[in-house]
Amino acid sequence: MNYILNNLPEREQKPREAGYTMAMDKGLSVREVEDFLEVAGNYVDIVKLGWATSYVVPNLEKKLDVYRAAGIPVYFGGTLFEAFIIRNQLEDYRRILDKYKMGYAEVSDGSIELDHGLKCEYIQTLSEQVTVLSEVGSKDDTKIIPPYKWIKLMQDELAAGSWKVIGEAREAGNVGLFRSTGEVRSGLVEEILTKIPFEKIIWEAPQKSQQVFFIKLLGANVNLGNIAPSEVVPLETIRLGLRGDTFSHFLDMEALKKEADLTQKLT
Amino acid sequence: MNYILNNLPEREQKPREAGYTMAMDKGLSVREVEDFLEVAGNYVDIVKLGWATSYVVPNLEKKLDVYRAAGIPVYFGGTLFEAFIIRNQLEDYRRILDKYKMGYAEVSDGSIELDHGLKCEYIQTLSEQVTVLSEVGSKDDTKIIPPYKWIKLMQDELAAGSWKVIGEAREAGNVGLFRSTGEVRSGLVEEILTKIPFEKIIWEAPQKSQQVFFIKLLGANVNLGNIAPSEVVPLETIRLGLRGDTFSHFLDMEALKKEADLTQKLT
Amino acid sequence: MNYILNNLPEREQKPREAGYTMAMDKGLSVREVEDFLEVAGNYVDIVKLGWATSYVVPNLEKKLDVYRAAGIPVYFGGTLFEAFIIRNQLEDYRRILDKYKMGYAEVSDGSIELDHGLKCEYIQTLSEQVTVLSEVGSKDDTKIIPPYKWIKLMQDELAAGSWKVIGEAREAGNVGLFRSTGEVRSGLVEEILTKIPFEKIIWEAPQKSQQVFFIKLLGANVNLGNIAPSEVVPLETIRLGLRGDTFSHFLDMEALKKEADLTQKLT
Repeated sequence: MNYILNNLPEREQKPREAGYTMAMDKGLSVREVEDFLEVAGNYVDIVKLGWATSYVVPNLEKKLDVYRAAGIPVYFGGTLFEAFIIRNQLEDYRRILDKYKMGYAEVSDGSIELDHGLKCEYIQTLSEQVTVLSEVGSKDDTKIIPPYKWIKLMQDELAAGSWKVIGEAREAGNVGLFRSTGEVRSGLVEEILTKIPFEKIIWEAPQKSQQVFFIKLLGANVNLGNIAPSEVVPLETIRLGLRGDTFSHFLDMEALKKEADLTQKLT
Repeated sequence: MNYILNNLPEREQKPREAGYTMAMDKGLSVREVEDFLEVAGNYVDIVKLGWATSYVVPNLEKKLDVYRAAGIPVYFGGTLFEAFIIRNQLEDYRRILDKYKMGYAEVSDGSIELDHGLKCEYIQTLSEQVTVLSEVGSKDDTKIIPPYKWIKLMQDELAAGSWKVIGEAREAGNVGLFRSTGEVRSGLVEEILTKIPFEKIIWEAPQKSQQVFFIKLLGANVNLGNIAPSEVVPLETIRLGLRGDTFSHFLDMEALKKEADLTQKLT
Repeated sequence: MNYILNNLPEREQKPREAGYTMAMDKGLSVREVEDFLEVAGNYVDIVKLGWATSYVVPNLEKKLDVYRAAGIPVYFGGTLFEAFIIRNQLEDYRRILDKYKMGYAEVSDGSIELDHGLKCEYIQTLSEQVTVLSEVGSKDDTKIIPPYKWIKLMQDELAAGSWKVIGEAREAGNVGLFRSTGEVRSGLVEEILTKIPFEKIIWEAPQKSQQVFFIKLLGANVNLGNIAPSEVVPLETIRLGLRGDTFSHFLDMEALKKEADLTQKLT
C-alpha cells in the first residue's frame, strides 16, 4: 500500500481461502497480461480463460507462461469442458489439461443438460488429475433453480471433490444468481449461506452493482468471480471501503464524524 | 487452433469473401494495434478507423504501417468521407487516400442528405481509385427506411461499383438495422436477403446480442462489422458455437447426447 | 492534424482555461499510460487517479513519472481526500501530497457529510499547498440539490480558493447532474451558467450522450471530466463536429449543401 489509512476492513492476504478474486481473460495479448499483472497481480488469485477462447487464441502457451511466472493459476472456462463432453471427447480434454500443465479445471453444465450424478462423477475423476472448481446454475434464463436445489447441488459437488463451487452468472450478469434486470436474487444467496461455508463459494459478479451487493452482504473477503482484468483494482477498493459505493459501509460514521468535528479546526 | 474439437461449423479461411470480420479502431496506440493483431490477426479481415478519428490521432502513419505489415487492409470511416463532401473537398479526400496509400474507402450518407444518384456517382468515381464499401441506412433514428428501399439502395450501390454494402448501425447499435432498444429488425434483414447475396453485405453488429442474432440466422460465415478489437476473439468463438450463446446452435444435441450417454461411463 | 478540413469549430489549444478534458485513470499500467498519451496526450489536460485507486496500485510513482514527463498534471480523486478527512488524517493527506509532489488536489464531499464552511476552510488551507479543484454534488442519488444551492456552493468554493469547480457525476453517470436514467438535468445546467463563468466549471460527463449534450449546449470548448482514457480521442472528434452526434451542429448545412450541390458535378 502506498500510504496509511486507518480503520480499513481486515483483508485476507494471498495465498488465501477467502477474499478470492477470480478474473476472466477473454483474449488478452501477452503484453496485456503483463500489464494486468503489473497493476493487479497482488489482488487477483486465479484467472479463467473465458469459455472456449483458449481454442482460438494463438498465444496460449506464452500467456500461460506469463501467468505461471507470476504465480497466478489459470483454468479453462467451463464451457470448454462442456464442448468436449457433448462431443464425447473427455479423454481429449484430459490430455489438453496435461499438455498445458493446467493445475485447475472447471466442471459445469451451463449449456448442456447433464445428469447430476454423472456431473459428480466428472468432478471426482477430474479431481484426481487437477483441482476442480464446479459451477452451479444454468446459463438459460428460463430455468429457475429453487434455493434448496442450489444447496443440494453445491453440497454434492463439494462432496464429489470440488475445491470450490461457483455461483453462475454470465459475463454480462443476467442469469443464474441474477434476475434479468441484473439484480441479485438476495433471498437465494442468504439461504445458500445457511448451509454452505462462505469460503467454499465463488460468486460470479461481473457488474459493479453485484460486487457491491456481495461485499455489503458478506464482507471484504467474499470470493468473487468473472471480474474483468481492468476491474480488479477498482474491486479491491470496493472491498476496502475506498470507493463511494462502500465508503461508509465499514466505518462507524457517527463516531468518526464526532471525533473529526472536534479536532479538525483548521487555522 | 490449439486442440481438436469435432463437429465445429465449417469456417471460411482468410482470404475470404464470406465470414468477414470488420473491426473498428477508434484510437488505438501502435502497441495496442500490435496486441490486437497478436491475438486476433487471424480472425479480423479489415479494420475501419472509426468515423474521423484519423483526423486527430497523432500516430496515423505508424499505425497504418503496422496493419499493412500484418496484411490487414484499413479504411477511413464513412463519416470522414461525408465531412469532406459537405465541405466541397472531394479532391482533398482523394488526395489523402493517395497520401496514406489506402486501398479501400467508404461512401456513406449517414450524417448528410445526399441525392442517391450523386452517391452512386461518388461510388463509381472512387471505385476507380480504391475498393469501395458503401453504407446504407441513416444514423438518424427518426428516419425509417422501408425494406424495398434498403434493397433498391443496395442494388444500385453494388451496380455503381461497391465491393460490399454495409448495413448501418452506430457504434452503440441503436439505429438503422436496430430498433432503439438494440433489437434487430429481423423482418427487414430477411427481406433484404431474398434479393442481395449474403456475402455482399456486412452487417454492423457492435453488440453481442446482435452478433448472435446474425450468426443464428445466417450462419458462422456471415459478414459482421463494427466489432471492438477486444471482441474479435469472443466473436470468433460465437461463430464456432464455442460460447454459451450459440453452443447448441450448430450441434445435433439429441444425437450427441445419446452417443455421449452410451459411452461416457466413467471409471 | 493529419489533413485539412475547412469549417471546423475553433478549438482552444493547450495550455488552455476552457476546452479542458479531464480523464480518469482507474488503474492503468505504466505501458497503458504511455499508450494513452501516445494517442491522446495532445487532447487531455489533466488526469484524475480515480477515487482511492492510488492506495492499491503498486506502480504509483512510476506512473506519476510518465505523466509528469508528458507535462500532464495528475491528482487524487476526491474520495481519497474524504477517506483521510473522515479518519481525522488531514495532516497525513497533506504529507502524501508532498511525498508524491502533487500539484493539484480535489476537495469533495460526495461520500461524507461536511459542513460547507468547513469544506471551504479545507479548500483554503489546501490551496496554499496545491491548486485545488472542488466538487459540488452528492454521490447519493436521493439527495437533490436545488439550482440556487448549486450556485451558492460553487461561488463560495471559488471564493475560498478553488481553481475550478467540478459538477459531480459518478463514473457510471447516474447522480448529481444526471437523472437516474443518465439524462442531464438541463434546467439545472442552464441556471448555473447564468451565475458562474463557464470556464470555471468542469462538467463530469463519462457517457457519450452527456458529452454530446454539453458540447451542443456550451460549444467545442466546454470543460469535461471523468472521461475514460480510451474515449479522449472520440471526445475530441465530438468537440470538432467530426462524429455523427455533432456532425451538423457546427455547420451551416443549408449553405454548405447548396455550394456542394453546385460545384460537385463529378466527371
